[in-house]
Amino acid sequence: MVAKYPEPMGRLIAEFTKMPGIGPKSAQRLAFYILQTSDGEVRELIDALQETKKKVGYCSNCFNISVEDPCEMCGDEGRDRTKICVVALSQDLIAIEKTREYIGLYHVLGGVISPLDGIGPENLRIKELLKRLTRDVKEVILALNPTVEGEATVIYLTKLLKPLGVKMTRIAYGLPVGSDMDYADEVTLTKAFEGRREVS
Amino acid sequence: MVAKYPEPMGRLIAEFTKMPGIGPKSAQRLAFYILQTSDGEVRELIDALQETKKKVGYCSNCFNISVEDPCEMCGDEGRDRTKICVVALSQDLIAIEKTREYIGLYHVLGGVISPLDGIGPENLRIKELLKRLTRDVKEVILALNPTVEGEATVIYLTKLLKPLGVKMTRIAYGLPVGSDMDYADEVTLTKAFEGRREVS
Repeated sequence: MVAKYPEPMGRLIAEFTKMPGIGPKSAQRLAFYILQTSDGEVRELIDALQETKKKVGYCSNCFNISVEDPCEMCGDEGRDRTKICVVALSQDLIAIEKTREYIGLYHVLGGVISPLDGIGPENLRIKELLKRLTRDVKEVILALNPTVEGEATVIYLTKLLKPLGVKMTRIAYGLPVGSDMDYADEVTLTKAFEGRREVS
Repeated sequence: MVAKYPEPMGRLIAEFTKMPGIGPKSAQRLAFYILQTSDGEVRELIDALQETKKKVGYCSNCFNISVEDPCEMCGDEGRDRTKICVVALSQDLIAIEKTREYIGLYHVLGGVISPLDGIGPENLRIKELLKRLTRDVKEVILALNPTVEGEATVIYLTKLLKPLGVKMTRIAYGLPVGSDMDYADEVTLTKAFEGRREVS
């Protein structure tokens, strides 16, 4: 007879294993953490899980995650409404907001074009982006990952939107700040050369 | 104004970050997983969390995690009651059970002696082990990690129990099966030499 985990704990480990980046060993460690932690703490976790599922949704304008609809940013008159920054995921938007540099609007595509994963332009919120391009919008900034899929999406969107007369920009490729040129890969270094700017 | 996560989601990320081995990035990934997964799936997770907290406790005899008290193993007359295998944690017990080689009883200490972490013999279930050493028990097998702390615990327990006339053994140190001798560290190789056995 092989000892198994007590039934509810085996089930908890199985549930944790479903989560991204959690293998069987981590799942076991998490289950023992739950067992040893206070009832109050676990109740807080359960409450946060329930509240997230109940309250957090998507903004029907920019498709960022939000409790309100439209979201705080879309409703904020203080933001620059002439710019829309296009990102793949809400995570990317949050990363940009942390810089405190950009104060325009956003549009979350929901991913990038990736034929290998079966994601075509029709699976992204591109039609919804088109609808937002009113006369007020002067610039669309593409902030997508510098990958093959991000690149394909940049090309697709540029072909689609450029004819509409809107200014299209993309964030810069180059050396990450604080990095060592000696360790940069050739493609990044090539892009850094292509993107060189005059020193004033 | 810096965008934050919607309130319940920020709270969920904070809760995940408290868990062992989960950093801010993993916590964010898990929160987005929860947001995107079905309500039913999240309900299953919550149910497993609640059931684990409600039903899983410790056996008052061997201190293994268990729904029943005494646990299934302590109550199982089919197991060899002349042997007690001493482990630090329930996780170790489960690892041993997976081998299907050992069919005796167990005793979970709850850790090992570790002065740096403030864990002395009085913090472990050693008194409870002593109480279990009736005339029926012929052998105590120490299955503790081959670390300084495990070693200290082995020495402490041997000094304490040997005078009682019980046979004390410890699991073998040596080369892991399938490993390359060339890559073994000196201490392991030394232990493997010390533990050599006659080939029959």
